[in-house]
Amino acid sequence: MRLLIANSNTTAAVTDGMVAAGRAVAAPGTEIRGANARFGPSIVGTRTEAAIATHGLIDLLAAEAAGTDAVLIGMSLDAGLLAARELLEVPVLGMTEAAMLTACMLAPRFGLLVMGQAGIVTGRELVEGYGLERRLAGIRMVDATPQDILAAPEAFHAPLLAAAQALVEQDGADAVVLMGAVLAIMPPVLRDRVPVPLLEGIACGVPLLEALVRMGLRAPQAGTLQTPRGRQTVGLGAALAARLGGAGG
Amino acid sequence: MRLLIANSNTTAAVTDGMVAAGRAVAAPGTEIRGANARFGPSIVGTRTEAAIATHGLIDLLAAEAAGTDAVLIGMSLDAGLLAARELLEVPVLGMTEAAMLTACMLAPRFGLLVMGQAGIVTGRELVEGYGLERRLAGIRMVDATPQDILAAPEAFHAPLLAAAQALVEQDGADAVVLMGAVLAIMPPVLRDRVPVPLLEGIACGVPLLEALVRMGLRAPQAGTLQTPRGRQTVGLGAALAARLGGAGG
Amino acid sequence: MRLLIANSNTTAAVTDGMVAAGRAVAAPGTEIRGANARFGPSIVGTRTEAAIATHGLIDLLAAEAAGTDAVLIGMSLDAGLLAARELLEVPVLGMTEAAMLTACMLAPRFGLLVMGQAGIVTGRELVEGYGLERRLAGIRMVDATPQDILAAPEAFHAPLLAAAQALVEQDGADAVVLMGAVLAIMPPVLRDRVPVPLLEGIACGVPLLEALVRMGLRAPQAGTLQTPRGRQTVGLGAALAARLGGAGG
Amino acid sequence: MRLLIANSNTTAAVTDGMVAAGRAVAAPGTEIRGANARFGPSIVGTRTEAAIATHGLIDLLAAEAAGTDAVLIGMSLDAGLLAARELLEVPVLGMTEAAMLTACMLAPRFGLLVMGQAGIVTGRELVEGYGLERRLAGIRMVDATPQDILAAPEAFHAPLLAAAQALVEQDGADAVVLMGAVLAIMPPVLRDRVPVPLLEGIACGVPLLEALVRMGLRAPQAGTLQTPRGRQTVGLGAALAARLGGAGG
Amino acid sequence: MRLLIANSNTTAAVTDGMVAAGRAVAAPGTEIRGANARFGPSIVGTRTEAAIATHGLIDLLAAEAAGTDAVLIGMSLDAGLLAARELLEVPVLGMTEAAMLTACMLAPRFGLLVMGQAGIVTGRELVEGYGLERRLAGIRMVDATPQDILAAPEAFHAPLLAAAQALVEQDGADAVVLMGAVLAIMPPVLRDRVPVPLLEGIACGVPLLEALVRMGLRAPQAGTLQTPRGRQTVGLGAALAARLGGAGG
Amino acid sequence: MRLLIANSNTTAAVTDGMVAAGRAVAAPGTEIRGANARFGPSIVGTRTEAAIATHGLIDLLAAEAAGTDAVLIGMSLDAGLLAARELLEVPVLGMTEAAMLTACMLAPRFGLLVMGQAGIVTGRELVEGYGLERRLAGIRMVDATPQDILAAPEAFHAPLLAAAQALVEQDGADAVVLMGAVLAIMPPVLRDRVPVPLLEGIACGVPLLEALVRMGLRAPQAGTLQTPRGRQTVGLGAALAARLGGAGG
Repeated sequence: MRLLIANSNTTAAVTDGMVAAGRAVAAPGTEIRGANARFGPSIVGTRTEAAIATHGLIDLLAAEAAGTDAVLIGMSLDAGLLAARELLEVPVLGMTEAAMLTACMLAPRFGLLVMGQAGIVTGRELVEGYGLERRLAGIRMVDATPQDILAAPEAFHAPLLAAAQALVEQDGADAVVLMGAVLAIMPPVLRDRVPVPLLEGIACGVPLLEALVRMGLRAPQAGTLQTPRGRQTVGLGAALAARLGGAGG
Repeated sequence: MRLLIANSNTTAAVTDGMVAAGRAVAAPGTEIRGANARFGPSIVGTRTEAAIATHGLIDLLAAEAAGTDAVLIGMSLDAGLLAARELLEVPVLGMTEAAMLTACMLAPRFGLLVMGQAGIVTGRELVEGYGLERRLAGIRMVDATPQDILAAPEAFHAPLLAAAQALVEQDGADAVVLMGAVLAIMPPVLRDRVPVPLLEGIACGVPLLEALVRMGLRAPQAGTLQTPRGRQTVGLGAALAARLGGAGG
Repeated sequence: MRLLIANSNTTAAVTDGMVAAGRAVAAPGTEIRGANARFGPSIVGTRTEAAIATHGLIDLLAAEAAGTDAVLIGMSLDAGLLAARELLEVPVLGMTEAAMLTACMLAPRFGLLVMGQAGIVTGRELVEGYGLERRLAGIRMVDATPQDILAAPEAFHAPLLAAAQALVEQDGADAVVLMGAVLAIMPPVLRDRVPVPLLEGIACGVPLLEALVRMGLRAPQAGTLQTPRGRQTVGLGAALAARLGGAGG
Repeated sequence: MRLLIANSNTTAAVTDGMVAAGRAVAAPGTEIRGANARFGPSIVGTRTEAAIATHGLIDLLAAEAAGTDAVLIGMSLDAGLLAARELLEVPVLGMTEAAMLTACMLAPRFGLLVMGQAGIVTGRELVEGYGLERRLAGIRMVDATPQDILAAPEAFHAPLLAAAQALVEQDGADAVVLMGAVLAIMPPVLRDRVPVPLLEGIACGVPLLEALVRMGLRAPQAGTLQTPRGRQTVGLGAALAARLGGAGG
Repeated sequence: MRLLIANSNTTAAVTDGMVAAGRAVAAPGTEIRGANARFGPSIVGTRTEAAIATHGLIDLLAAEAAGTDAVLIGMSLDAGLLAARELLEVPVLGMTEAAMLTACMLAPRFGLLVMGQAGIVTGRELVEGYGLERRLAGIRMVDATPQDILAAPEAFHAPLLAAAQALVEQDGADAVVLMGAVLAIMPPVLRDRVPVPLLEGIACGVPLLEALVRMGLRAPQAGTLQTPRGRQTVGLGAALAARLGGAGG
Repeated sequence: MRLLIANSNTTAAVTDGMVAAGRAVAAPGTEIRGANARFGPSIVGTRTEAAIATHGLIDLLAAEAAGTDAVLIGMSLDAGLLAARELLEVPVLGMTEAAMLTACMLAPRFGLLVMGQAGIVTGRELVEGYGLERRLAGIRMVDATPQDILAAPEAFHAPLLAAAQALVEQDGADAVVLMGAVLAIMPPVLRDRVPVPLLEGIACGVPLLEALVRMGLRAPQAGTLQTPRGRQTVGLGAALAARLGGAGG
């Protein structure tokens, strides 16, 4: 099985980290490849950049997804998820979606652990976008940017553990979801120090996509996720224009 | 006051229709100008195209919004609304948002009138995205594409009126919102044949933006809608790259 | 355009303040007039008084609204809003409703700033009554009565600013709504010290009503807001009895 | 125990019917008395009339509730319920509230059976006002006014039974609530022909109030339902003015 | 009238306490009897025990409920409530349900006072299971087990009062519900020191069941609560097997 | 990996069918075993039986789950799910839960296809219990009992396909979940005739449990799902009593 981690950003180093994390959890026989957006933000940190990165993701998928059995979107906002599901005929998961739905398999309510004050707003919007607000126990943050954590990960172990502990003890969470690509590559030692399952998008998304591929589901032939055909566009990348403009079924 | 109708599509004819509709309702002294996306779908009809058009909108705004006092997004999905609010320092409304919030000023619940079966799903997603589901009386559709209606508008008067009537009489709507740019340019005679206010995005959005400009509100200096500064990007249009990369305040 | 600010209380001084605030924001050509209830509470401070004031409002509108193009209810609870919309054929907004719907045009979530502990309950009830709870970031209060603030407004600048700041920074609000007629007449200097739009009912309601009048919407001929006709009553004010008892359409 | 059925309308005949229905279900030792509003609508049929009747109810309670152990509001909209709870120190129930909360003691979801198309809207608003929408299986109507049913009750047995049956079989209701004072006095034979409990406000409200009185609960000394004291008013009925103006505790 | 308090646990001492509390509030002529589960947990303290106790309750009811006019489930989780309603043809209430629905008759929102951190989660799940989350002002806990409180009840008066006070003053509760059988037997003196009605399941459930019996409602003949008939089972208690296996109607 | 399909019923034939269905989809190396409840209903068809079967499931798990890596609850109501998660230290999924969460990985909204009118109520209760109502497009039924379908499966292909089609075309579902163990063994040919993914609990649950096992998550050491220890019980099966009574960690 071939799985693509599609990073909507343009920063290859983050992609590489996610690919490594994915390989660590993949089943034998699963090949994992990463790809970056060809244009757009280096790191998505604003609403505007998320909007641009969504196009970057779609462009990337049109160019790179041929021959892939499943796609994991490697950006914590999961931006472009439904568009990617529509465009492709293989399973697609967002990384934070994957962690949240895994949490739903383990716990009546999960806590969400985010980076920075803005992450609290973004995280809530994401939970609500998935219609999962009744499964949310609470949101807590560590006061750090991705850059901060990349620069000195050990310095954030204590705040992360404290926030996770508060989600469990004060908010009633029976699982904790980490939101943020950079958190996906924190040393697994953290997991052993949180008293409930600690989940992030790569370690959840890869096995879930393997499961979806095993189910052998058909691509939708009706409804709101059918592959577009015969659409007219202007000024797009060649692969994307070709894919959208293809003859209908 | 200068108002920009920003069409996320690339089809200038639709923009022209919306500009004309906007001028018909504008206050004396309001100048209305239209602009199209430089790239992307001719008409947005799929989730993928909406994702691309969001970038098209942002790119367009970076290039064209200087000197504008307010922006109306001229696409019925209002895609990119929050990104546009973040990017610009002037009021921005989506056309369907404008009609729905106007409905909220008139009626305890409104009905939504869409085009085609897919519009029922899209319409519901939009209402839920705005957190307005408790204000929704129901959604009804006319079985037509925008192209159908543009080709023979009179043929759809009867089905539109029947659907509006059902929203009022069976679903309990006290106002009816038309979703779809093409519906914004239906002859006003329809309005006189629906027994409650019949609202669409241009005729609502222009006066609401005039009102917001009059309020003289400051642009956000904190929170999730501050203008981005100092962001690094690759391969974007010059105006957009410059705007995102500008020095911080 | 003639706009009536209808104060459901009997205290003319508050009405005068609201009229002055309204005139400060009105467009050229908008005439603003105020009127008080003929009977009822001096200041609405309890649920019982709100119930009485609703009748006071209806009685006032029957007597005073002839020839008016739009009505703004000048009491923060917006009590009687739907009854007033039913009774009249012109647009009617409640002052807190106006501020909340303006916030919805600016921000994904707004914060609500109220006076006193009871205001937290009242405010939440109002937000829920409008079906806007998913747009609410949080409610914070300043510990003061309207009388306190009228007596020494400067003394409350600091607590108001602190509460607004907490709504933005801790609760994730991208706009702040002030609830309370007395807050509508705080010096505008406050607005410049809150980092997101600071909204209150008069400064929002007057431009929104101007916009609604410009839209030229018809009065409902069906549904739940049709003007009552041919109703039998006992012991009401002459204008109200006449209006309710009028011949049907 | 003395129980007052407070009819917010001015029509004594309806009050008499409710008092008779209440006596039929009351425990030995419960004395039931009825009273009408002194002013307001003959029959509440519009939003405006409900607003007026709320004042009528409050005025009536101030004048008549002394010495009463409990109050049942005898109007199907339960208008003025929270104001009445605040004003008085004895238990107060609305008639439709009483039937809905009884249904909650019997069934996971109840159906609501209303009169006329407008009743569907009104009924939904009432259910939502009580925060009980998750307990609602559906709303169905019989196409009749109260006057129609009073004039020829037997003619409506069949439509009422058909609507009740549909609520059970199609909507999944395990109890059916009748909304409307006139339905409270339909012959009990209907109850035997509906396959789940058929509930209306008088037959539910009287025993529930007896239960509340037996519980011997104290009146609130804090919170949002404390009895108002020391309020200034203009032009109200003497009893109401005196009660609101009384010295604080 | 004969009322059974059915304790899903096997600890008779708790049953005795509840029976005594029930008799203290019962009307003249109401006979109250208690019964315990024949098997299962001594005290339900975990999800697994609640699952077992549900069977214990059903088994107990099949054996003991003949001749009873109403049943109160004497366990704070109300586990097995809908099954008991289905199995029996008489009214059945859960003790916490009874207190919550009484609170709904008194207050727009109630606070929930639980024992221990886990009680916060359990309490929320119960409120949501009843679809009453919009009536919930907040949940607060005293840090104690049932055993702690039984051992030294006076030691917990102060923390209970403090938590109740916080529910009223900070969370906006107009009534407080105590969750936990052991709290049902706290000295009534507590009630006089909380400024809003303080409710627990026995003192609320007994009068409510008396009211339901007085209403003389029929058992459901359709829907999801009809008594099961003709069901095949293996290895159950004789009375339960007989009841489930009985001939259909 | 060893996976147990735990059938809360006592009918081994249904278990065998589920085991066969599970083996058809399992990964190489996954061993699947089935087990039945030792006591309880032959087939769960009522609320009372579900309550009993929950104990049957717990008893079964205590006796049979040793050495198992994961458990799939083989009853469509998923009764006892959280208790089973608490009791065991390995992943546990309910079969309908598994299908619903798979649907959430594929579609913005799913349709639910149930057997019989009662299934509509039961299905809705299950969806709401999982907090997934915002992901539900609609519920449709085929008018049949499990016995009907087992007796003549081909006779129900047409109604099942029609209901699935309606969920997609009229209700806006992008995936369809079959609820009912008997539907899990319908010939896969149906899947090719529904235009969106058609999901049932065994074919979804087995791969998801394989994925959860691969994730290597720790059992909870805090929160509401910790394994019970040191609990006192009466009259339970030996394995269950021993497990609950075990010494604490």
